[in-house]
Amino acid sequence: MAPSIIDLRSDTVTKPTPGMRAAMAAAEVGDDVIDVDPSCERLEQMTAKLLGKEAAIFMPSGSMSNQIAVRIHCKPGDEFLCESGCHIYNYEQGAFAQLSGVVARTFDGEQGVLTVDQLKGTVRPWNDHLVRTRMVCLENTHNRGAGRVQPFDVVKEISDWGRSEGLRVHLDGARLMNAVAASGIAADRWCDLFDTVSICFSKGLGAPIGSALAGPKEMIVEARRHRKLFGGAMRQVGVIASAAAYALEHHVARLVDDHANAQILATAVSRSEHLTLLPVDTNIIIFKVSARLGGAAIFAAELKSRGVLCFATSPTQIRLVTHLDVTAEECQTAGEIIVEVAQDLAAGVRRAQVVEAAY
Amino acid sequence: MAPSIIDLRSDTVTKPTPGMRAAMAAAEVGDDVIDVDPSCERLEQMTAKLLGKEAAIFMPSGSMSNQIAVRIHCKPGDEFLCESGCHIYNYEQGAFAQLSGVVARTFDGEQGVLTVDQLKGTVRPWNDHLVRTRMVCLENTHNRGAGRVQPFDVVKEISDWGRSEGLRVHLDGARLMNAVAASGIAADRWCDLFDTVSICFSKGLGAPIGSALAGPKEMIVEARRHRKLFGGAMRQVGVIASAAAYALEHHVARLVDDHANAQILATAVSRSEHLTLLPVDTNIIIFKVSARLGGAAIFAAELKSRGVLCFATSPTQIRLVTHLDVTAEECQTAGEIIVEVAQDLAAGVRRAQVVEAAY
Amino acid sequence: MAPSIIDLRSDTVTKPTPGMRAAMAAAEVGDDVIDVDPSCERLEQMTAKLLGKEAAIFMPSGSMSNQIAVRIHCKPGDEFLCESGCHIYNYEQGAFAQLSGVVARTFDGEQGVLTVDQLKGTVRPWNDHLVRTRMVCLENTHNRGAGRVQPFDVVKEISDWGRSEGLRVHLDGARLMNAVAASGIAADRWCDLFDTVSICFSKGLGAPIGSALAGPKEMIVEARRHRKLFGGAMRQVGVIASAAAYALEHHVARLVDDHANAQILATAVSRSEHLTLLPVDTNIIIFKVSARLGGAAIFAAELKSRGVLCFATSPTQIRLVTHLDVTAEECQTAGEIIVEVAQDLAAGVRRAQVVEAAY
Amino acid sequence: MAPSIIDLRSDTVTKPTPGMRAAMAAAEVGDDVIDVDPSCERLEQMTAKLLGKEAAIFMPSGSMSNQIAVRIHCKPGDEFLCESGCHIYNYEQGAFAQLSGVVARTFDGEQGVLTVDQLKGTVRPWNDHLVRTRMVCLENTHNRGAGRVQPFDVVKEISDWGRSEGLRVHLDGARLMNAVAASGIAADRWCDLFDTVSICFSKGLGAPIGSALAGPKEMIVEARRHRKLFGGAMRQVGVIASAAAYALEHHVARLVDDHANAQILATAVSRSEHLTLLPVDTNIIIFKVSARLGGAAIFAAELKSRGVLCFATSPTQIRLVTHLDVTAEECQTAGEIIVEVAQDLAAGVRRAQVVEAAY
Repeated sequence: MAPSIIDLRSDTVTKPTPGMRAAMAAAEVGDDVIDVDPSCERLEQMTAKLLGKEAAIFMPSGSMSNQIAVRIHCKPGDEFLCESGCHIYNYEQGAFAQLSGVVARTFDGEQGVLTVDQLKGTVRPWNDHLVRTRMVCLENTHNRGAGRVQPFDVVKEISDWGRSEGLRVHLDGARLMNAVAASGIAADRWCDLFDTVSICFSKGLGAPIGSALAGPKEMIVEARRHRKLFGGAMRQVGVIASAAAYALEHHVARLVDDHANAQILATAVSRSEHLTLLPVDTNIIIFKVSARLGGAAIFAAELKSRGVLCFATSPTQIRLVTHLDVTAEECQTAGEIIVEVAQDLAAGVRRAQVVEAAY
Repeated sequence: MAPSIIDLRSDTVTKPTPGMRAAMAAAEVGDDVIDVDPSCERLEQMTAKLLGKEAAIFMPSGSMSNQIAVRIHCKPGDEFLCESGCHIYNYEQGAFAQLSGVVARTFDGEQGVLTVDQLKGTVRPWNDHLVRTRMVCLENTHNRGAGRVQPFDVVKEISDWGRSEGLRVHLDGARLMNAVAASGIAADRWCDLFDTVSICFSKGLGAPIGSALAGPKEMIVEARRHRKLFGGAMRQVGVIASAAAYALEHHVARLVDDHANAQILATAVSRSEHLTLLPVDTNIIIFKVSARLGGAAIFAAELKSRGVLCFATSPTQIRLVTHLDVTAEECQTAGEIIVEVAQDLAAGVRRAQVVEAAY
Repeated sequence: MAPSIIDLRSDTVTKPTPGMRAAMAAAEVGDDVIDVDPSCERLEQMTAKLLGKEAAIFMPSGSMSNQIAVRIHCKPGDEFLCESGCHIYNYEQGAFAQLSGVVARTFDGEQGVLTVDQLKGTVRPWNDHLVRTRMVCLENTHNRGAGRVQPFDVVKEISDWGRSEGLRVHLDGARLMNAVAASGIAADRWCDLFDTVSICFSKGLGAPIGSALAGPKEMIVEARRHRKLFGGAMRQVGVIASAAAYALEHHVARLVDDHANAQILATAVSRSEHLTLLPVDTNIIIFKVSARLGGAAIFAAELKSRGVLCFATSPTQIRLVTHLDVTAEECQTAGEIIVEVAQDLAAGVRRAQVVEAAY
Repeated sequence: MAPSIIDLRSDTVTKPTPGMRAAMAAAEVGDDVIDVDPSCERLEQMTAKLLGKEAAIFMPSGSMSNQIAVRIHCKPGDEFLCESGCHIYNYEQGAFAQLSGVVARTFDGEQGVLTVDQLKGTVRPWNDHLVRTRMVCLENTHNRGAGRVQPFDVVKEISDWGRSEGLRVHLDGARLMNAVAASGIAADRWCDLFDTVSICFSKGLGAPIGSALAGPKEMIVEARRHRKLFGGAMRQVGVIASAAAYALEHHVARLVDDHANAQILATAVSRSEHLTLLPVDTNIIIFKVSARLGGAAIFAAELKSRGVLCFATSPTQIRLVTHLDVTAEECQTAGEIIVEVAQDLAAGVRRAQVVEAAY
């Protein structure tokens, strides 16, 4: 990829920094299946502490963390309640049903935000016709909700209600640290509202690989068993866990920069009459492309031809994500290109062909 | 149960008539697992013909018919689209996920009726993050939709759209014959819009046991294999299939009586200022109980104490169903009792205690 | 089928007797899903009493009884121990894995009989690599073991060992009453060695449909939930449960006749130098066909052409089963035909073509 | 762990060498979920070439490679044939059943080696009672078979038979390169006998993490989808794939050293009258401990107290594995300690307590 490319497709595209690479190269390791890998153990302890949980376990991906949370909380024939746009329901290939026999019940949120009133009265009675309502899942920040930070009070109400109903409460916190950075509310306060929390190291935190699931010790012991089942137990895993630990130590404070950069993009987008921006809380920018521009796939292709990579996440929507590997200047440039592309497409000027559209 | 009880809980409560019992007692039978049971084969052929399909297979229950349809059309990791109140999603213990690893995507309909516009654009692209959208399920008449007959044109639009998208289309026709009776549109015309159709013999048709799944011959051969897997293959099954055949021969024409009886109840309910009736198309009556009456569970208990059985299907809703074993006179009486109970409860007069509320 | 046919394929082919049909026609019924069907309830109580268990539940098939027992005792990732020729492992389409995620570990028995020494030391330690050993399943009488009655002491040793290891113990007692008739040991004494027991009404007992699962009350409550999931909950099920009750009342004592008839067949078979008989304990006869006769499929086809139906259960084995609908005289005749066919085939005389061989 | 410890528990305990760490630190990377990670792509191409397959895919563990092979070849209700001691059946938590609804049929081999005669006649006919026989799995070298190299001709016979029956053939080649080193038969010749092959980088090859599955291109595309489902898709995975590539380049030729070291241990063990050695083909040594020594758990604990780590793999068996991180001298020393421990235990001298025994 040429150096002039500005890659705003996802915060997963970041590459390990020299410091991070050095940490990996120096990591003390052990066989984490037979014994314990010391670097991984250290990461797990750091994560548990950060999230205010008894224990945490390293996972190769956020999907595995989430889907193992489903298995910890639910058995076949249980259902969980979630927002209809959430990652666990939409982007994990239905693993909850496919691998675990669990049903999802979805509710449409406002930019990914549910209210407790939508959930009240939904717990199914015990009856042989019905699944057992067992868990509530929230996502914070909410990816399809344009990186929205869930309002703390709303989350607390849902958590309180869920617990009063005997439900388990899981947080898909892939981007929890973005919520922390944006809200100023500490991670452990957020996590206190949940039984288990997943967190990703390979998104805004900039590690190459990995996620963790945190919760009570006995649940994390169970998670270890499910991780083996899924094929996620790795040997000298310290070589990557050390990168995640480095990310926790060095890349948390800087998330505010990604948020500031997102505002640069947001400002640009909101200048264009052809683009409709969703409110931007963190590092994700979603905007609608007006019909006369020809659709999001064309818009994305056109952007790409001018050096800006993004995702068309629906036939009419574009998503941009800021991260460790894009600077304020690049966001400034990208914003200008976006506005220019909107103008050009509105004026019928088009340089690129759509090769594929996969939202 | 004392003779004075009027049981409006469901059309599943009917008992076989003398003529039906005689047909069962005289049925020619065979081992339907090893060979073919002749009475069952006859029923399957009658059903296939009625529904305009190549083949049909007898099942012990409507849930088995529906869930085997799911297995015919979907593999683990596929999703189907359905109305959020439908039976297959709500009342079959999540078997689609629990036994078959399939995901449901739900859309809120108007009294159980979806529109094609709600579905357009929902077929997911082929992408390793996503489930494969594979099937649309409709329900006609729609149980939770107060026995609503799906508008034929709407169904046709959805079917046409589904097929143009390469989706399979399944009808939960547990009460299809009620839709036929109410719409005047023949069963095979309805079924022509679907790949597979389930139909129940033990609801309005009055047989003691059974359902059938109809469709193309090769799918029904597959269904036979799944039926064995589920434990639904039975031996001299003609002893019950003959009752279903009798029901098809003798109880279809009379469904209009159930619909007329439902109107008697509807008229009564609509007279009460405390009750809010949903439109009544067929043999199911659903009404809301005003808050000042104390809730549906109290209403149902009070009705029961006065000899009328119904189901509270939510904290605020009552469902009544007419059938073979209730007469017009009984419906007249029940209607009066319902109005009276509403008045009494509004006035604070209450005779019964709620023992249980299970909606 | 012409009246001269002697059908020895299975004891499942029996047709309800006039008395049984009368019982069915007169059965008091109710909606067994909403309420309780009184005839079914009576059958369940009779069955529980016969088997010395707290409760029993009627099922549409023996496969459903067995597979629901698996679900009661095991969760996904558990394993059960069983004899490698047993029904639950071989003839139920792998439902234990396919629907319930359970692993079977098999051990080769002597005519279906395991010893406790084969099982000792097989319980797996708790370790994330390993499944959890959870259950032992036995089958009595053992179908593929030529209807062998499991030695009571051996069964007791296995049961004692299993319980001492914390395992659940299930009996596939599809033909338990044959074991009772042959051993003189009462059903409840056998069942005392097991947590749950399935029993079939549609085999030697001669009912058209059905099975039951018996066990502690709380397990049977669970079984009811699984039965709904599998689509096995039926409405006015008394119309068939009454036949099963009739069978328990009228057809148990006569099982000794089937065993006597099996000895008639055994005597004939053992006269032929071309046939090798397995020991015959009950109503199942299995013999090997010598290679020079051309294989079991040819033997079965030839028998069929002369009016005797049997199953080739392997390329070299024939199975015959006696039952309510074959007399001693018919067994005498069938025995002679079998010997004659063996002689003719050995001599190169062959009348029939093999149409299909499906063992 | 003190420097004097000789760790013979597994070849998974090796730590990355300085050269390997340097390769990891320098690896070019990309987002392997969105795009392609170049280092991972290179590894996949190297692996495919080595194994003579069209394509290969990197996996976080050998269990994931094997269990995804199961999903590629089998659907729910299929069965595979395998040796009863193999890894895929015993050590992967029954994932084939638990996650994929697949049944295993096991056959007892001689030190892990099956013969084609054991398999002939086992493919089940198409019948609704039966699972579908779909795959044969072999393991080479065979872990529980003491690292036995499967005889090439035997493997070929089984492969030929399986293919003639329309079965898929999968090789668990976690330690295939040990079989190559010991047999002198190239990897691609072995792999030619199989549709898919898994290979581990984190065993004898000495990489910290990872495995690959190789096969026809279309199967590997499918594998990619299943890997996403299992949560095994990782982002900048080149940081570990580069270690695996380094292992392929630098650690294959040296496997003969591990085999030579294993012979040092074997020679020692065979000197003790109290220990019974299984034939040693590669880098795994298994021996039985005579009863008078008090069992394998005691033996292992005693060895540990003297600085040698091993696994008790059954109540009477000890397993040792040689690898990159043990020298010939250390094996010499370990052999002497083993003999000494056997003598001491036989003489009643015992220093250590058993803390836990988990085989």
